[in-house]
Amino acid sequence: MKEIKDKSIEVFLDELASKQPTPGGGSAAAVMGAQGAALVSMVCNLTIGKPKYAAVEAEMQNLLAEAEALRETLIGMIKADVDVFDKLMACYALPKASDDEKAHRSAQIQFVLREATEVPLACAKACAEAMALSRVAAEKGNLGVISDAGVAVMAAYAGLKSAALNVTINAASLKDREFAEAKLAELRALMQSADSEAEEVYQIVKAKL
Amino acid sequence: MKEIKDKSIEVFLDELASKQPTPGGGSAAAVMGAQGAALVSMVCNLTIGKPKYAAVEAEMQNLLAEAEALRETLIGMIKADVDVFDKLMACYALPKASDDEKAHRSAQIQFVLREATEVPLACAKACAEAMALSRVAAEKGNLGVISDAGVAVMAAYAGLKSAALNVTINAASLKDREFAEAKLAELRALMQSADSEAEEVYQIVKAKL
Repeated sequence: MKEIKDKSIEVFLDELASKQPTPGGGSAAAVMGAQGAALVSMVCNLTIGKPKYAAVEAEMQNLLAEAEALRETLIGMIKADVDVFDKLMACYALPKASDDEKAHRSAQIQFVLREATEVPLACAKACAEAMALSRVAAEKGNLGVISDAGVAVMAAYAGLKSAALNVTINAASLKDREFAEAKLAELRALMQSADSEAEEVYQIVKAKL
Repeated sequence: MKEIKDKSIEVFLDELASKQPTPGGGSAAAVMGAQGAALVSMVCNLTIGKPKYAAVEAEMQNLLAEAEALRETLIGMIKADVDVFDKLMACYALPKASDDEKAHRSAQIQFVLREATEVPLACAKACAEAMALSRVAAEKGNLGVISDAGVAVMAAYAGLKSAALNVTINAASLKDREFAEAKLAELRALMQSADSEAEEVYQIVKAKL
């Protein structure tokens, strides 16, 4: 079986639209985040080496390295989302005839639910990071491609808000409320200023068009 | 040469990140819109045929047909964006030594700029339409996959805001101000309630998790 990242865009979209449970919103969130990181890289690649932008050359080199590392992380998350979802479905399919079976099934579900909460939380974090990088691209990148920094921030923002939904769903099913609440607190911290941050970066770009 | 839709997600992201001018934010906008439409279809496909949702069966069938048509349109826009950008670059590359050449080059640029304004405007319209469909999915779709309706609205919203930047850039370079202002008025109408609409649909989903 091909990994999702190796499938064509059209096949990915066909599978997203189908009644197969995966790929779903979690993979779509990672793809959006990766598009955001890729567009930050594009702005960097079209700023680096231009005499007019010599003053920000070193900063753009660093930004490019960060964006490329983040893109790799987010590409990995496309698969991570599918893997943990499949694991969770396998747990729900465990037998539940006897009390022993019920107890075993429930313990397995709870074990995998922790991972199913952490995977989208990591995606949300990576998307928030991509938003922060797109602000630098919007502020200092080549004006000729500055709109791509605006697309970057919107893609990363959509990825963040999407991943957040999956954190919320899976945290809600966790019986270990201390763990769940800790993860939800991390999520709230990421989300706190996301709406205003996305709008601010978008307006920085718009003002330069 | 492979069309973008036939390239793998990873190759698409590599090309997006590279210093090649295309694909850029315009194609990314279309891909995000298509992800939104695909996720509306996913919610429909996992609602249709379920006895619990028999009351909305016909509506979900219609919604699915609309989402699939929109997805096709948006997939076509990935290529349309690259094509018109390449055409525009070819115009800018025309010779401009003599006054005649200058006049011819300018006329060609202006001719293609109209298309370069209309292509992202059509993408913005399709994304706004995908947002409207995701509201129906969020309100009436299978609760078990309702988060995918929330991802759908965010993807389509990011596509809309992204496409809008390209309409703004290209309209600004148009000498035919009447045409440009008419297109910008259409864009403003699409954008007017987009922020609040995205937030409302997202909150409908969140309240159901």
